[in-house]
Amino acid sequence: MTKFDEATQAIRVDETTYDVCLDPGYSIGGPLNGGYLMATLLRAVADASPHPHPVSTSAQFLKAALPGPARVVLEPLKTGRTTTVTRATLVRDGDACLDTLVTTAALDGAPAAWSATPAVAMPPVEECVALPDPRPESGMTLSERMELRYDPPTVGWFTGAPTGRPESRAYFRLAEPQDPDPFVLALAVDALPPVAFSAGARGWSPTVELTWHLRALPAPGWLTLIGSGRLIRDGWFDEDVEVWDAAGNLVAQSRQLARLGRGDAT
Amino acid sequence: MTKFDEATQAIRVDETTYDVCLDPGYSIGGPLNGGYLMATLLRAVADASPHPHPVSTSAQFLKAALPGPARVVLEPLKTGRTTTVTRATLVRDGDACLDTLVTTAALDGAPAAWSATPAVAMPPVEECVALPDPRPESGMTLSERMELRYDPPTVGWFTGAPTGRPESRAYFRLAEPQDPDPFVLALAVDALPPVAFSAGARGWSPTVELTWHLRALPAPGWLTLIGSGRLIRDGWFDEDVEVWDAAGNLVAQSRQLARLGRGDAT
Repeated sequence: MTKFDEATQAIRVDETTYDVCLDPGYSIGGPLNGGYLMATLLRAVADASPHPHPVSTSAQFLKAALPGPARVVLEPLKTGRTTTVTRATLVRDGDACLDTLVTTAALDGAPAAWSATPAVAMPPVEECVALPDPRPESGMTLSERMELRYDPPTVGWFTGAPTGRPESRAYFRLAEPQDPDPFVLALAVDALPPVAFSAGARGWSPTVELTWHLRALPAPGWLTLIGSGRLIRDGWFDEDVEVWDAAGNLVAQSRQLARLGRGDAT
Repeated sequence: MTKFDEATQAIRVDETTYDVCLDPGYSIGGPLNGGYLMATLLRAVADASPHPHPVSTSAQFLKAALPGPARVVLEPLKTGRTTTVTRATLVRDGDACLDTLVTTAALDGAPAAWSATPAVAMPPVEECVALPDPRPESGMTLSERMELRYDPPTVGWFTGAPTGRPESRAYFRLAEPQDPDPFVLALAVDALPPVAFSAGARGWSPTVELTWHLRALPAPGWLTLIGSGRLIRDGWFDEDVEVWDAAGNLVAQSRQLARLGRGDAT
């Protein structure tokens, strides 16, 4: 079992309750990463469903979650031939941290009938760059668990040269070798620095809502994350992330609505 | 009171229950339109919230809803200074038809700090076309309540000439004169024919999940709906709709995941 599989384990207590252990290795400086929380919650949802794949997940982030024991509470809403719909809530220390509506189904691997192509071509991975390791006192343990290789202009903000528009692009894989699966994709859709950083914003950008759709099972290898935004207004911004696999398939689509950090430049 | 305002009224029974009357005028041939159902549900959510605007709505469509009396049941999840999060369920005849997670907040009308532009330029409204009225026996009453003027190529499928890619674009307004507001936007984001029709698909395309974000309060006048899709695969397709107001502002963004109709060409 890989570290990621272990850290996202969900142990069945009864039909509607799973125990989980929120792992300090997925921290973004105290609170845990939202994608990691979704991956853990989705393990419980998928285990309890007659359908194996979380094709659609809508998540409201209610409260920052700290490491430690927690529960996933399921409420079955509908089961049909094609889909199962479940409400799933991650509860830690009596508080709901994450509330979700999830549709599960079975993706059968049929080829795409029609597909768009990536909006932006990525340079080869060798021409992409890592960000420096965070200072140990930052508590950003998440960056040790995953490898990100950024399209250089989209991390220009890091050295004071933002591109001026919301964007963020990188190759992604887990640090410990593991083929991507739907749970790794849940982590991947929330793995990029906020796209608003490239537009000059700064600071903690809390996600309010994130919806992502699993569109195909990913092939082994690097994933490509193409992040962009359409509007920064009234303290809110949107972040769209497409995940493409190494075989060139669009495997996940996400959009989140987030708050701008304080002290931002826009 | 306009017909639309009347048809989406939600009457408070107690803190967590609202009575509604689902209006037969918003039917798509028996079942009611999903955008109309969202608008009605959001009236209840907004009335019960200390924050006036539904900035983020994630909806799972569980069961087709027929006209008649129904209830909106609210479950408050979080109230903070900036946002309130509510779970809201539309229940008709004992069955949950629509289950949602909604964030309300107050948009203050600040100008955009950064905005994209529409991906496709629309021809002027005079060069756009209406579709013929549906046959009375189709039960498509919805089309009498709203005016849509389509970008001609994107309704080529209607005369056997689909463009070959998922897209749908139109100007939109209510048939009875009414300035757009957030509830009209809830109707607008689900008002276009499925984008998959332009890619050659046919038949009833049930929405499984739809998430939309209110990004600004719309100016009076025509709304512009820009619909597109990224992938048609395994019986599923995505539909993205941006709503731009007459002043050129991006006022709403939606994405839905839907099932392809049976007997489709793709």
